Amino acid sequence: MTAGAARLIGVGVGPGDPELITLKAVRALAAADVVAHFAKAGHASHARTIAASHLPAGVAELPFPYPVTTEIPKDAPAYCGRIEAFYDGCAATIASHLDAQRSVAVLCEGDPLFYGSYMHLHVRLAARYPTEVIAGITGMSGCWSAVGAPAAQGDDVFTVLPGTLPEAELVRRLADADAAVVMKLGRNLPKVRRALDRAGRLGRAIYVERGTMAGGAAMPLADKPDDTAPYFAMVLVPGFGGRQ
Amino acid sequence: MTAGAARLIGVGVGPGDPELITLKAVRALAAADVVAHFAKAGHASHARTIAASHLPAGVAELPFPYPVTTEIPKDAPAYCGRIEAFYDGCAATIASHLDAQRSVAVLCEGDPLFYGSYMHLHVRLAARYPTEVIAGITGMSGCWSAVGAPAAQGDDVFTVLPGTLPEAELVRRLADADAAVVMKLGRNLPKVRRALDRAGRLGRAIYVERGTMAGGAAMPLADKPDDTAPYFAMVLVPGFGGRQ
Repeated sequence: MTAGAARLIGVGVGPGDPELITLKAVRALAAADVVAHFAKAGHASHARTIAASHLPAGVAELPFPYPVTTEIPKDAPAYCGRIEAFYDGCAATIASHLDAQRSVAVLCEGDPLFYGSYMHLHVRLAARYPTEVIAGITGMSGCWSAVGAPAAQGDDVFTVLPGTLPEAELVRRLADADAAVVMKLGRNLPKVRRALDRAGRLGRAIYVERGTMAGGAAMPLADKPDDTAPYFAMVLVPGFGGRQ
Repeated sequence: MTAGAARLIGVGVGPGDPELITLKAVRALAAADVVAHFAKAGHASHARTIAASHLPAGVAELPFPYPVTTEIPKDAPAYCGRIEAFYDGCAATIASHLDAQRSVAVLCEGDPLFYGSYMHLHVRLAARYPTEVIAGITGMSGCWSAVGAPAAQGDDVFTVLPGTLPEAELVRRLADADAAVVMKLGRNLPKVRRALDRAGRLGRAIYVERGTMAGGAAMPLADKPDDTAPYFAMVLVPGFGGRQ
């Protein structure tokens, strides 16, 4: 990778622990002309915080504050329209830098192509510009490593479920998988807890909050006394380990 | 982590590209008293090859050659008995080093707790000794990043399936997931191809061989002219990207 050459780079910075970034990501950031990052409006970018020590001094930055996050339901036309227009605008901004022969590194929490915003830029730009994606440690991997819970083994079927699914579908899918992760908890936690119970998986479920970050917490979900959870908390249903 | 203190460390070294190792793994390896690694008998350990440049000069090594790999069916009693005895022996060897107050880093391709051999040591030792697990980039993450295929997005249900499953079950599960990865191809590839076709997913399926390694190859599975695949090749069925 040469600084000064047009190149889009999706850089996975991992789940939160600043040491869980790869050598490849560190090298890419050191050579980037421009560094872009998404954040909730009015907040610092998590991905930028994770990678801060690896950004070149004085590098040009493109902060992209989301116009909406969870204020509007995701299936509402108003949400889709605004968010699509937002990603169109981000892609156009990045394209202007690529057209000027600059390399643009997009910081991505976790892995760029696994439930992340980078994908919206990738599908808009990758066919038109040289593009590289640098894999990152996913949030779920950070969580099961932090708690030492074997995720899946042998011929396990492993499934990732968003907590936004209807309860009946969560029950069906949890009962049908050897191992699972339920993401996007937040206000979905009471429903997720009921679904795990109905699927016979509550006894194995581990609640993890801020897995690899300072102030992280983990406990058997059955022992969690309340239904308060941040949106990015998750529940692990270990496969191999849970059946020991 | 202090060298000289008993500590078991599962170290994820990533999917193959030596740069896809984390800073945390590099630091742990530099401080390890003993480095253990699994390999097929008569072959070099892939994980050791990936991490070779980070091992301390002259560090004590514990190579663990598998007594059997695919010569005996995995559900045969002879396989289970031999492999359980093998892991018992590996754990006892590691325990002897831990008892002597040495730190033992176990090299793990990909992520230690995601379909890896390290788990067999973890469940035998983690309750008895201080243990740390350092997450690694999974093989599937390395593959979808190498080919730039968005894996899953938004409210996608994402499923990992072993190619060893019966064809009918592969069909059912592939049709039921928004995004999927099929691992353990090898001689299962003809069956996996038929299952993808029956589930209406063949058009989206991408075959990836040695994703992040030298000599890696990827192509739409529908374009692959033969049914020859290494055991560790995989098929990606992208979610988000595939529906664009």
